[in-house]
Amino acid sequence: MVKEKIRILIIHGPNLNLLGSRQPEIYGTKGFDNTFEHLKTLFPNTALSYIQSNIEGELIDKVQQADGKFDGIILNAGGYSHTSVALADAVAAIKTPVIGIHISNIYKREPERHTDLLSKYCVGTITGLGLKGYELAIRYYIEK
Amino acid sequence: MVKEKIRILIIHGPNLNLLGSRQPEIYGTKGFDNTFEHLKTLFPNTALSYIQSNIEGELIDKVQQADGKFDGIILNAGGYSHTSVALADAVAAIKTPVIGIHISNIYKREPERHTDLLSKYCVGTITGLGLKGYELAIRYYIEK
Amino acid sequence: MVKEKIRILIIHGPNLNLLGSRQPEIYGTKGFDNTFEHLKTLFPNTALSYIQSNIEGELIDKVQQADGKFDGIILNAGGYSHTSVALADAVAAIKTPVIGIHISNIYKREPERHTDLLSKYCVGTITGLGLKGYELAIRYYIEK
Amino acid sequence: MVKEKIRILIIHGPNLNLLGSRQPEIYGTKGFDNTFEHLKTLFPNTALSYIQSNIEGELIDKVQQADGKFDGIILNAGGYSHTSVALADAVAAIKTPVIGIHISNIYKREPERHTDLLSKYCVGTITGLGLKGYELAIRYYIEK
Amino acid sequence: MVKEKIRILIIHGPNLNLLGSRQPEIYGTKGFDNTFEHLKTLFPNTALSYIQSNIEGELIDKVQQADGKFDGIILNAGGYSHTSVALADAVAAIKTPVIGIHISNIYKREPERHTDLLSKYCVGTITGLGLKGYELAIRYYIEK
Amino acid sequence: MVKEKIRILIIHGPNLNLLGSRQPEIYGTKGFDNTFEHLKTLFPNTALSYIQSNIEGELIDKVQQADGKFDGIILNAGGYSHTSVALADAVAAIKTPVIGIHISNIYKREPERHTDLLSKYCVGTITGLGLKGYELAIRYYIEK
Amino acid sequence: MVKEKIRILIIHGPNLNLLGSRQPEIYGTKGFDNTFEHLKTLFPNTALSYIQSNIEGELIDKVQQADGKFDGIILNAGGYSHTSVALADAVAAIKTPVIGIHISNIYKREPERHTDLLSKYCVGTITGLGLKGYELAIRYYIEK
Amino acid sequence: MVKEKIRILIIHGPNLNLLGSRQPEIYGTKGFDNTFEHLKTLFPNTALSYIQSNIEGELIDKVQQADGKFDGIILNAGGYSHTSVALADAVAAIKTPVIGIHISNIYKREPERHTDLLSKYCVGTITGLGLKGYELAIRYYIEK
Amino acid sequence: MVKEKIRILIIHGPNLNLLGSRQPEIYGTKGFDNTFEHLKTLFPNTALSYIQSNIEGELIDKVQQADGKFDGIILNAGGYSHTSVALADAVAAIKTPVIGIHISNIYKREPERHTDLLSKYCVGTITGLGLKGYELAIRYYIEK
Amino acid sequence: MVKEKIRILIIHGPNLNLLGSRQPEIYGTKGFDNTFEHLKTLFPNTALSYIQSNIEGELIDKVQQADGKFDGIILNAGGYSHTSVALADAVAAIKTPVIGIHISNIYKREPERHTDLLSKYCVGTITGLGLKGYELAIRYYIEK
Amino acid sequence: MVKEKIRILIIHGPNLNLLGSRQPEIYGTKGFDNTFEHLKTLFPNTALSYIQSNIEGELIDKVQQADGKFDGIILNAGGYSHTSVALADAVAAIKTPVIGIHISNIYKREPERHTDLLSKYCVGTITGLGLKGYELAIRYYIEK
Amino acid sequence: MVKEKIRILIIHGPNLNLLGSRQPEIYGTKGFDNTFEHLKTLFPNTALSYIQSNIEGELIDKVQQADGKFDGIILNAGGYSHTSVALADAVAAIKTPVIGIHISNIYKREPERHTDLLSKYCVGTITGLGLKGYELAIRYYIEK
Repeated sequence: MVKEKIRILIIHGPNLNLLGSRQPEIYGTKGFDNTFEHLKTLFPNTALSYIQSNIEGELIDKVQQADGKFDGIILNAGGYSHTSVALADAVAAIKTPVIGIHISNIYKREPERHTDLLSKYCVGTITGLGLKGYELAIRYYIEK
Repeated sequence: MVKEKIRILIIHGPNLNLLGSRQPEIYGTKGFDNTFEHLKTLFPNTALSYIQSNIEGELIDKVQQADGKFDGIILNAGGYSHTSVALADAVAAIKTPVIGIHISNIYKREPERHTDLLSKYCVGTITGLGLKGYELAIRYYIEK
Repeated sequence: MVKEKIRILIIHGPNLNLLGSRQPEIYGTKGFDNTFEHLKTLFPNTALSYIQSNIEGELIDKVQQADGKFDGIILNAGGYSHTSVALADAVAAIKTPVIGIHISNIYKREPERHTDLLSKYCVGTITGLGLKGYELAIRYYIEK
Repeated sequence: MVKEKIRILIIHGPNLNLLGSRQPEIYGTKGFDNTFEHLKTLFPNTALSYIQSNIEGELIDKVQQADGKFDGIILNAGGYSHTSVALADAVAAIKTPVIGIHISNIYKREPERHTDLLSKYCVGTITGLGLKGYELAIRYYIEK
Repeated sequence: MVKEKIRILIIHGPNLNLLGSRQPEIYGTKGFDNTFEHLKTLFPNTALSYIQSNIEGELIDKVQQADGKFDGIILNAGGYSHTSVALADAVAAIKTPVIGIHISNIYKREPERHTDLLSKYCVGTITGLGLKGYELAIRYYIEK
Repeated sequence: MVKEKIRILIIHGPNLNLLGSRQPEIYGTKGFDNTFEHLKTLFPNTALSYIQSNIEGELIDKVQQADGKFDGIILNAGGYSHTSVALADAVAAIKTPVIGIHISNIYKREPERHTDLLSKYCVGTITGLGLKGYELAIRYYIEK
Repeated sequence: MVKEKIRILIIHGPNLNLLGSRQPEIYGTKGFDNTFEHLKTLFPNTALSYIQSNIEGELIDKVQQADGKFDGIILNAGGYSHTSVALADAVAAIKTPVIGIHISNIYKREPERHTDLLSKYCVGTITGLGLKGYELAIRYYIEK
Repeated sequence: MVKEKIRILIIHGPNLNLLGSRQPEIYGTKGFDNTFEHLKTLFPNTALSYIQSNIEGELIDKVQQADGKFDGIILNAGGYSHTSVALADAVAAIKTPVIGIHISNIYKREPERHTDLLSKYCVGTITGLGLKGYELAIRYYIEK
Repeated sequence: MVKEKIRILIIHGPNLNLLGSRQPEIYGTKGFDNTFEHLKTLFPNTALSYIQSNIEGELIDKVQQADGKFDGIILNAGGYSHTSVALADAVAAIKTPVIGIHISNIYKREPERHTDLLSKYCVGTITGLGLKGYELAIRYYIEK
Repeated sequence: MVKEKIRILIIHGPNLNLLGSRQPEIYGTKGFDNTFEHLKTLFPNTALSYIQSNIEGELIDKVQQADGKFDGIILNAGGYSHTSVALADAVAAIKTPVIGIHISNIYKREPERHTDLLSKYCVGTITGLGLKGYELAIRYYIEK
Repeated sequence: MVKEKIRILIIHGPNLNLLGSRQPEIYGTKGFDNTFEHLKTLFPNTALSYIQSNIEGELIDKVQQADGKFDGIILNAGGYSHTSVALADAVAAIKTPVIGIHISNIYKREPERHTDLLSKYCVGTITGLGLKGYELAIRYYIEK
Repeated sequence: MVKEKIRILIIHGPNLNLLGSRQPEIYGTKGFDNTFEHLKTLFPNTALSYIQSNIEGELIDKVQQADGKFDGIILNAGGYSHTSVALADAVAAIKTPVIGIHISNIYKREPERHTDLLSKYCVGTITGLGLKGYELAIRYYIEK
């Protein structure tokens, strides 16, 4: 009998489509496309999906629609991490577990980035470990 | 002469499409569809409309477009109640009266849900009376 | 077999005896006596009672004594809403459900009126819908 | 034609019945009875009344009942000055002007005494001038 | 020569008349009557008195009247502990020492119960030791 | 033997030279010159002086120089009341008593006007009684 | 050789499509269409573009897409100015300079409008100068 | 008939006499003299005046004296912008309109510079556009 | 059959080794040695132990090691009461009940002493009753 | 040539020696010994060390001594995470990178656990992923 | 060749002209004149100057004018230390180093004296060491 | 007769053993050993001692033990300056005077370093004058 692949969805919030060109001193020079290809190679037995939106409500849609269709969500909500009770509500409303990711160490930055409204509804959060954080989160879902 | 029906629009914000499945210990197990049918039966001489969106800006669009086309709006803005100055601006900008609704008693919940930025621009607010709150709000518009 | 009347007690806190003469631009020009008569006419199968006191401890007495003797309380605690942990304790201590009422929209007024210490112990709260709020609260108890 | 006497009511709040014995290093050693007699002698053409209560709601009653029956109220609300929205509401609700009095300089004392919730509804406030403050307040009403 | 009995007054504030029925998971199932009888048996050489009121100003009256007539006061001010500057003033105004009591551990409860305005004017405070706290307070007065 | 006149200095801070023309809905339409003449007439046996400056440091100079040369100072520090620790220091540094005056009721105005840094170093403060406040303050010095 | 036109994009956020009808006592009675035509006439050698959206994420899209395609952006983010870290991130992420505009003087309005999260990433901000502000911002880009 | 020149007064507060030498990474290397000459050339039909003072009270004097003698004031109050209620009072007290200027973007700097007490009494404020801001403000007065 | 002695451990935190010499106006002139001997005499059927350390981590060690070996702990954590989440964690981690003691009335002292991080994990707290507090706490354990 | 093993030090702060027995509903039932053995098996080419202390200053010693002797530190500072500027200083003072770990999701717990003073000096932080977090941190050091 | 004397300017702010007479329990009984003579004797090879002003703007003038003309400034800004962004700006604007002095220990006094806005622009600050602080500051400049 | 040497103890808190290697851009490149030797040479008639510990409780021990054995203490408590009520208590408990030292200007650094809990119990504090601060503090003790 064939074991089914673990299904993981990576959701990116606002401005993360600019990775690689935006403020490279903070976010590095690598776009996410390469990273995503690398992750697929690294975890061949995992079904990885990826979406991005700058629109808060579309992210809420995505989180809702993913419920039950994936085994785990990896959510980097960008600037909405700090302000969106509504997106936090969506994370709280679904049963599929969510891991929060911050590429940069938000605690080295401005005060308005030190509060993450989503974190209390997530399983956990990985902060400041760069693009490596995505790989670690996938590994958590596979091996936990 | 025929008296025209009172036109009332119910606007639902983020995650309220999940009513009935989301956190039933807070929001109950009934979806809004049944409630809406029930309300139409209860108020046969009222023209009831209903829309939902997870997108803050679409809600602003809806509020703007409703101005002058309805006699009253019933707005449950969900998580945007606590964070959206822009949606509050839309409520302030129109002439059609708005009643705010919270299905759960937000004051029994986390501190970030205790502030409702929209309330000061609404006629009033009904909090914690469950789905019954919608019926009471409609009655306010009909009988006031 | 005769169904018993639902018993509802309306409790009014400080300065609400002045309704109709006090700050009419906020509270309107109608005294509560007319409203109470109107409510009795409107709900003939409901046993409505009404008391008012300016004294915080008397209101606590009333709330305590109402426990088990009424099916629902409608409490407009006036200025004590914003300051009285002791009255909130009384609401928390009894089993009879309580609905809070604010005639005016307290969120349009001074900051010291934006916090309602009682609300978290109430079933729910109706704010800003004027004297109509009392009728809606009764209806909630009758029809819920 | 005989000019009517100006009618002034002095209302004292909690613990002010202890004047003369309570913390004399703050409030002095004179009880209020002597002061009141002195004021009557000083202003023979003024009708002066005086009441005291430790009960917040009774003070509200007194303020309400004085409305229209006096030409001016002098209110030393003691500890309720710092906590009572309800008593402040009573001051706001009546048309008779109210002058607030603090015998001691509340700004030299603990922080919880630095806020006076009543002051914004009073005509004005006299603070720290001891029992002399009552005389000055009466003079204001007579001569303004 | 006969040594006089030590005179101790227990003063109970709002809602403490409900002990035994109110929120038993917090306050236990014992009413205070049994406790008071037990205390009288336990300390036969002490003159114990007990009064309760829900009215803030009556509590102030009681505190004032007790001054000099008792050797010690045990004051559980209930909800007024957290809000009443006026009752705190009464405690500060008298010479008879006061021990504050909280039956439950107020620091395990809501934030508005974490501040006790009276405590700084009391000799000391016993918190969270249930009805046993009254016995310990009496013992303090007898044996100190 | 001739009793010496009581010497009183009135010090006016910034913008009070505009009395009568500035925001008459707040400050009235009377300039201070008339008031000062009126006060001199009213208290013929008192030596009244008056100075005004818009410059914080000059006001400090004046307060310092007045020490010992006057029997009482009446200080309306205008906007510096709310911000000047340095002027408050000057009041604290001298032995001559100071009464603070606010013509308008500062508690009815913006929040930044609700704190008066000078008040704790003054004997007392008269607020909101208009130009009458100056007369009452003089009377306090003469009759106390 | 022909000098290229300076390309400037005006971006309008939520509710600014209502200019001219919305709260005219704050925003005036002129819609933005006339203003935009007037600006094109006034600056014939400048390529002016204009877009509006009520949706936060679409505004982020617009800001991102404008990068490198315009010489300057004029951004009136409406209510999102006060709450959107995500839109501020977009402004920070691009190289094209941005000038923030507020038509009304936000400091005369409610406290939640006093903080502008975008301003620190803008070149500068023009506040309270009405529709004239747009012209001044264009002039800044042309002449700086 | 000859149209009179528009009269505009530029008032500079503390440390602005150091422009060109002080912290050039923030304020640039140009002194204000050149700028002022440039402005006079640019607006030959406008009567431009300019004064500077480091003394808060002198700035208040200047603002008062300018009332009615100029058609507009351009006020860069430097550090007093953040602390002076008294200078704000002067702006509020006069009828001549005032535009506030900040050469640097104060929102990129320390928190104590993020609040501008004067702004609510000004017509509007131009922030962060360097010395160009003065020209834009003049243009506002001429063309509005 | 012999009933086992109740085992109680008294733990003293920083600076409590100085009792009797340190700030006697606050802590009295008695060292703890006498008190401890007195307690052993008073409760001959109780096994009393006593340890003191100035080192936060050693106190954590002691609390951990006491778990299950004692029937009750009496903990006066001194200055660590106000700052140590780690010591509070140790109290929360063990099953043996802990009573907190403050010899002085901490609410009469500086604000940084008004918060006790340990109290919510303790059974209860005795504050301000001097060295008598230890005896009362022992009695609670014996008689509860 | 033989590649040297990567040297990693795991440092545990207060109460983490109780893992497996302390509050298992939060921290699980596994002690750290098994986990540490498992990690050594999992990463045979890595030199793993482990120390624990309840004493803040010993943790500082350990962090200092590890500098240059390890390639990476994994630090779970327990309760000191929220209060120790001194331990944060040690992390800031050394060159060896540090990853912070929280086994539980601190954002689901009490407010005093929501601030992590160390995080801004760490490379990054892994929160809420249980004992799995240690494995992910090691992997980060090996593979980055 | 003759080594030039080090030039040091002592600047005193408001009320420091009163040293010796003002609140001697805080500031001692010695005027500054004696101290200044003593300092000149103590450091014969140093050129010491001294000025005082009560006027904030004059102090700004002095600080500006001292730039480049002295090798070090010793600034006791008195009450302006706590409120003057403008004076802090002057310190930031100049190249000559500044040492701040507080004669008394400001941390033992009222909260409004605990913040020193100038300190972050100074080289350093000496607090609470009385008039000796001036000598130590001079020594720092000579020997550093 | 031989005058006894003044005995001074320098106590260093956490991470100060790293001086010279730790963050040299803040603390300089000199270790404290050289400085200590230099101080002994500079003050041959003074008995200087020096100890360092990273452990909060050991520092408390040191402070306690020094009482009466030294004529002055110079205490640089490092990170504990900002968090340790217990160490502050030790300073308050002894009679030997203490001068606080901060090598760097803590007001130029992060907000959590701006509060020094020890300062109010010290004679005074020297901040930001580098290692020179120790010499000045010794001089204060010798010459005061």
